[in-house]
Amino acid sequence: MPDPFPEAEFQQRCAHAQAAMARAGVTALLLTGEADVRYFSGFLTRFWESPTRPWFLVIPAMGKPVAVIPGIGAELMGATWVEDIRTWAAPDYEDDGVSLLGETLREVTGPGDRIGVPMGRETQLRMPLGDWSRLCAALADREMVDATAIIQAQQQVKSPAEIVLIRDICAIAGRAFDRVPQIAVPGVTLAQLFRRFQMALLEEGADWVPYLAGGAGPGGYGDVISPACDVPLARGDLVMLDTGAMRQGYFCDFDRNWALGEAAAEVMEANRILFDATEAGFAAARVGATMADLYHAMAGVIAAAGDAGAGGRLGHGLGMRLTDPPSIVPADQTVLVPGMVLTLEPALQMGVGRMMVHEEDIVITAGGAEWLTPRGPRELPVLEWDA
Amino acid sequence: MPDPFPEAEFQQRCAHAQAAMARAGVTALLLTGEADVRYFSGFLTRFWESPTRPWFLVIPAMGKPVAVIPGIGAELMGATWVEDIRTWAAPDYEDDGVSLLGETLREVTGPGDRIGVPMGRETQLRMPLGDWSRLCAALADREMVDATAIIQAQQQVKSPAEIVLIRDICAIAGRAFDRVPQIAVPGVTLAQLFRRFQMALLEEGADWVPYLAGGAGPGGYGDVISPACDVPLARGDLVMLDTGAMRQGYFCDFDRNWALGEAAAEVMEANRILFDATEAGFAAARVGATMADLYHAMAGVIAAAGDAGAGGRLGHGLGMRLTDPPSIVPADQTVLVPGMVLTLEPALQMGVGRMMVHEEDIVITAGGAEWLTPRGPRELPVLEWDA
Repeated sequence: MPDPFPEAEFQQRCAHAQAAMARAGVTALLLTGEADVRYFSGFLTRFWESPTRPWFLVIPAMGKPVAVIPGIGAELMGATWVEDIRTWAAPDYEDDGVSLLGETLREVTGPGDRIGVPMGRETQLRMPLGDWSRLCAALADREMVDATAIIQAQQQVKSPAEIVLIRDICAIAGRAFDRVPQIAVPGVTLAQLFRRFQMALLEEGADWVPYLAGGAGPGGYGDVISPACDVPLARGDLVMLDTGAMRQGYFCDFDRNWALGEAAAEVMEANRILFDATEAGFAAARVGATMADLYHAMAGVIAAAGDAGAGGRLGHGLGMRLTDPPSIVPADQTVLVPGMVLTLEPALQMGVGRMMVHEEDIVITAGGAEWLTPRGPRELPVLEWDA
Repeated sequence: MPDPFPEAEFQQRCAHAQAAMARAGVTALLLTGEADVRYFSGFLTRFWESPTRPWFLVIPAMGKPVAVIPGIGAELMGATWVEDIRTWAAPDYEDDGVSLLGETLREVTGPGDRIGVPMGRETQLRMPLGDWSRLCAALADREMVDATAIIQAQQQVKSPAEIVLIRDICAIAGRAFDRVPQIAVPGVTLAQLFRRFQMALLEEGADWVPYLAGGAGPGGYGDVISPACDVPLARGDLVMLDTGAMRQGYFCDFDRNWALGEAAAEVMEANRILFDATEAGFAAARVGATMADLYHAMAGVIAAAGDAGAGGRLGHGLGMRLTDPPSIVPADQTVLVPGMVLTLEPALQMGVGRMMVHEEDIVITAGGAEWLTPRGPRELPVLEWDA
């Protein structure tokens, strides 16, 4: 896959981070996670699925990133804008890249310097904890500090080129959702629906489907994270599919609901309430508003309808990961700026084991929010069901 | 999806770990990774794709595991054999489960006790590093120790029920590979081949396709981890697809090669050498042999053919992860026992940017190795190509 970005995109990302590093007194960044490494290098591979090997990217105070990676990735990293690529033969049972990484970090920092590593909310260190301890010991005269704020503040504002990609995968998934009425037919199990919907996503142009969840049950589903079961779909079921499909390394994350054959008035009304809540979130999503404002706008519609809601957050950032910071929760005071891509994800608890969730994706622009997803309907679609 | 295992499977896994913990003087295990949590609980969801929320499973010295998880997972965890499920409303910006986890670990351990956490090769801590520091501080009178040996020694020997699932997904992928000659036709790009092959995997019964890599190039491909590009397949290309498809939470990991229209004698011969190397690995894979023995058996065939090989490891464990320990490398002295599932993955470097890789999956039994994958052919398949 040719890189969807010109080199200037990576130059800008790197320069932006280096300016923030300078302000924070951080001389180098150490990145170990898939999205962080890809964000600054363009290194796109599904090989991260294998937990065997660690991968490191070092952002120095000036200049291009330095890759410290297993030899198996040299060819692919060599096709990116990164020039300084240092490899070892992983897995190495004696020293799995730790010395090479330590030398690299010593080279781009001095004694007393601060090295930034993401340590905060929604981050993970993708290297063995034992190797991390060895690295810290080897760099005892440097200081390891939390770089979460530097990375996340930058990544949550998408460039125009990134937004094009997210818009693209949202359109692809929208076309796949449009085909569900032809797939969700009598005799089909939820597991089969999951498979055929993933096939539709691929056929419409998704590169792969890292995430699919959903549910089906009489008048509502129990949760939104379960895998599919082999129980046949049935008349009266409320069915939901929620996908994080990917195109050129960028995600969509939205869902759709359908009733099979019939729907109780309560279920039809739940769909309208969630539609209206999403509209309220969209209207509130203006430059200068906070994530908390979006929460209250959506929660207010749900409360006005006399429902307590299903709890939890009502949306989140989106981009190279299925879910990115910030979160639409009362505690999040992040101020919206142009370029942020968010999901709006209100939920209703209609009874024990019976919930409904809506989800759409938007981008913040100077003039307000724009839909990235084809908007779902206010009237719940009731599919024909002649079993 | 109904759990593919009876509760007795989880009882045995837990009892086995608890016996090893007792021998190692470890009072509790703290697990944070998808496969480790699922191995002891049965908690299967694709929701791990979202990095927002941490998930914790605590294995006490006796009794069932204790789940400390975000509320969004309560319904699904409640369907497993785990009874003690403690939840918090994640994401919580003040305390994202750390206090709840700390209290739980204090409850099942005493002062001076050792708490085991995987810290070694091929492990990662799936929680923010900052939260890990806070947890360690809250448990300063306990000792955090590396539990990698306990976990990995157990997990690398699969139960009969696990082997059934791996055999199943290998058969599914085998049927999908059989359909590639109908897909890899003139006018198709590698990206389209990737999409259509994933569709074939789903149609044949895979639940999802977490991993697909491959390559295509004149007489060989450049590497084995790249995503697909939009360049059309061409006569003379050597094409390879390598998939980690999943069924009920278990992976296959194997590949197939095809020549399009024609193949040089050197390429045909490379296929025979790699076939023979895999045969040698299979023959060497007997109870009591070491992973190093498998390495030398395969590397010996490649060296005897006058080729230096492509370097790197020649296979690995397989199961709930695309790649599991141990590795087929000279340094690995792991002794084969019945129940181990391995890939045999020899590679040849035929020229600059031109390699070939074979991969098959096997299980070790008392009587020797058994193929889990339908065996690839010694004669490289040359597909008709009338462009």
